[in-house]
Amino acid sequence: MDVGAETTAAGETPGRGAPGGDTGGGVWRFAASVGLRLDSGARLSPLEIAYKTYGRLNETKTNAILVCHALTGDQHAASVNPATGRPGWWNSVIGQGLPLDPDRYFIIATNVVGGCMGSTGPASTNPKTGQPYGLAFPVITIGDMVRAQAMLIEALGIDTLFAVVGGSMGGMQVLQWTADYPEKLFSAVCVAAAPRHSAQNIAFHEVGRQAIMADPDWRGGAYESQGVRPEKGLAVARMAAHITYLSEPALQRKFGRELQRDGLSWGFDADFQVESYLRHQGTSFVDRFDANSYLYITRALDYFDLAGQRGGVLAEAFQKARGVRFCVLSFSSDWLYPTAESRDIVRALNAAGCRASFAEIETDKGHDAFFLDEPQFDRALRGFFASAAQARGL
Amino acid sequence: MDVGAETTAAGETPGRGAPGGDTGGGVWRFAASVGLRLDSGARLSPLEIAYKTYGRLNETKTNAILVCHALTGDQHAASVNPATGRPGWWNSVIGQGLPLDPDRYFIIATNVVGGCMGSTGPASTNPKTGQPYGLAFPVITIGDMVRAQAMLIEALGIDTLFAVVGGSMGGMQVLQWTADYPEKLFSAVCVAAAPRHSAQNIAFHEVGRQAIMADPDWRGGAYESQGVRPEKGLAVARMAAHITYLSEPALQRKFGRELQRDGLSWGFDADFQVESYLRHQGTSFVDRFDANSYLYITRALDYFDLAGQRGGVLAEAFQKARGVRFCVLSFSSDWLYPTAESRDIVRALNAAGCRASFAEIETDKGHDAFFLDEPQFDRALRGFFASAAQARGL
Repeated sequence: MDVGAETTAAGETPGRGAPGGDTGGGVWRFAASVGLRLDSGARLSPLEIAYKTYGRLNETKTNAILVCHALTGDQHAASVNPATGRPGWWNSVIGQGLPLDPDRYFIIATNVVGGCMGSTGPASTNPKTGQPYGLAFPVITIGDMVRAQAMLIEALGIDTLFAVVGGSMGGMQVLQWTADYPEKLFSAVCVAAAPRHSAQNIAFHEVGRQAIMADPDWRGGAYESQGVRPEKGLAVARMAAHITYLSEPALQRKFGRELQRDGLSWGFDADFQVESYLRHQGTSFVDRFDANSYLYITRALDYFDLAGQRGGVLAEAFQKARGVRFCVLSFSSDWLYPTAESRDIVRALNAAGCRASFAEIETDKGHDAFFLDEPQFDRALRGFFASAAQARGL
Repeated sequence: MDVGAETTAAGETPGRGAPGGDTGGGVWRFAASVGLRLDSGARLSPLEIAYKTYGRLNETKTNAILVCHALTGDQHAASVNPATGRPGWWNSVIGQGLPLDPDRYFIIATNVVGGCMGSTGPASTNPKTGQPYGLAFPVITIGDMVRAQAMLIEALGIDTLFAVVGGSMGGMQVLQWTADYPEKLFSAVCVAAAPRHSAQNIAFHEVGRQAIMADPDWRGGAYESQGVRPEKGLAVARMAAHITYLSEPALQRKFGRELQRDGLSWGFDADFQVESYLRHQGTSFVDRFDANSYLYITRALDYFDLAGQRGGVLAEAFQKARGVRFCVLSFSSDWLYPTAESRDIVRALNAAGCRASFAEIETDKGHDAFFLDEPQFDRALRGFFASAAQARGL
């Protein structure tokens, strides 16, 4: 493959417990002649995929793990995010002594195509105009994200991944990997995900998209070249989505009806702490995320339907994945992708004759529990990886 | 009391099965010297309350039922809504042969203070400026709504209501009635409601308010006098709220992943039927509702906390209501005001020594089931009213 790559300097701050100075990555620039074939029929070129690595690839190249991110995640899974200065989003999972230990594994995290943290997306320059793509960017799918990742993995010289792992949209990428590239996988860990987007999932995303597109500063998607940003619309989109990431009991326990100040304002200031929290979620999000990327990635999620791609029979997606060790995990209070959806996946895996372990983690923390330090979740990941690593001879 | 009233012409189209030509109502204009004392400490004057009646008050004035509406409801409970041309919102409950039969009862429905269907609200003229109030309108509460209703009931010459009944915010008004005016009630029916707004409830409302206030056509609430309306913001608010009114299974059954057309658009048109449905909910809502009223009424809901008003002990709210026959109803798939919240109400009623019947209606239709023709709901209402009417000698 005709590829060229550029990597950042080593020595960035690694995740909690990760070996110092051992991280790598950068932006992989595929040659213009390569490009990405898209499910829509379009072709995306030039193509850049931003990625980050933790740990070292062993000599037999058998210890590579691909970590897939959720809607608003990125490649900074276990090291400080340069856009926010905050710790990596999976610092509770990746790090020395943690389930994904860089002393043992070579961990790769990419920014999905369509994203806004270095991979080619709607804010990238459209070679036809010299301006940011905006809405001229082609609609992408989970399949496209995975195809780009597979190209990067190949460019990095890795034939088979020890594991592909991710939560939420990351879990959907995991499922897509097992359907499209089962021969390149030893194991697959799908957390808090679903085999297809439900009507309610689509509805919430549509609210977010309408909020962005209702903002006059969206400018039909051309805000980048006009020096404005649809910040208010994007903040509202984030606020609505954020509610779906938390459980009702967790919100109640954390905030209840606690006030910001003594007494009510008798106005429309943030009287309740939950209002203030939500406003902060909205305003801080616009500092780190691109509104058009939000449109494109939510669209990719809505289009996701692994069974729909195969005549409505989910088990068909896994027919070639009998050699892959699966682990499916859900959270009991996740109402965005409830346990029932994970059970659908497991049933289909069973029907396809795949080897699958499944656990529902008891927690009241909702969908976002996969970002958190949940002891049951930690134990489930450790157990699965220990067994798989032994089988892989790692 | 120094009051004056104006009623509309009789003969409007009554609800399904209601006796022809028997409806009444109009806009009650309280004398300027009366005004409404508000929980905030402010006073609202002039005060107008729009109302509608079905059936006739009997000679002993013992058959009056007050129907309280939900967030976006109004006084047109069982007759064609002049703003939309659509049937009344409780046509499945009020009408000849239905649980609330105008042949038997005198049914009164008001538009809440703060509303936009004829009662004094933020779109009314501020006597100080001669312009619409906008944000100069005082923040109102469920208690204020109920106080205005009590004034109207008194003005109509009714000492005791046979029943006060309502769903969602209507149910909260019912609870407030039993706390503030128990001596004026024979029975109370609280449907799909809660004794206080939860953190998640407040969070969803805050998303809606932020969507409205993010719309540049909101103009700090002064849009009325500037000839614009924050239609896009209000539509987004409605879309987000509407998802909470339906259950996930109902959305899935009704829409699933069905497409609008053959194939995907590979763009941001409404590909899925659920998107199109939601967009329609948003755009049709702005034709019938005022954005500032939406801000004020959601605020009233967020402020609602019957126990909080009484040192955190809900049973205290019902101490004087031992003479009231209570009926509390919830819907099994309602996740906005789940059954657990109705159980909290029933426990407090029991603790206060009140007479309460309770039923959880099995349905997959979510919160909005109380608007629908649900056989179990219909039976529960019939049973309760039959028993109460017998006890009342009706």
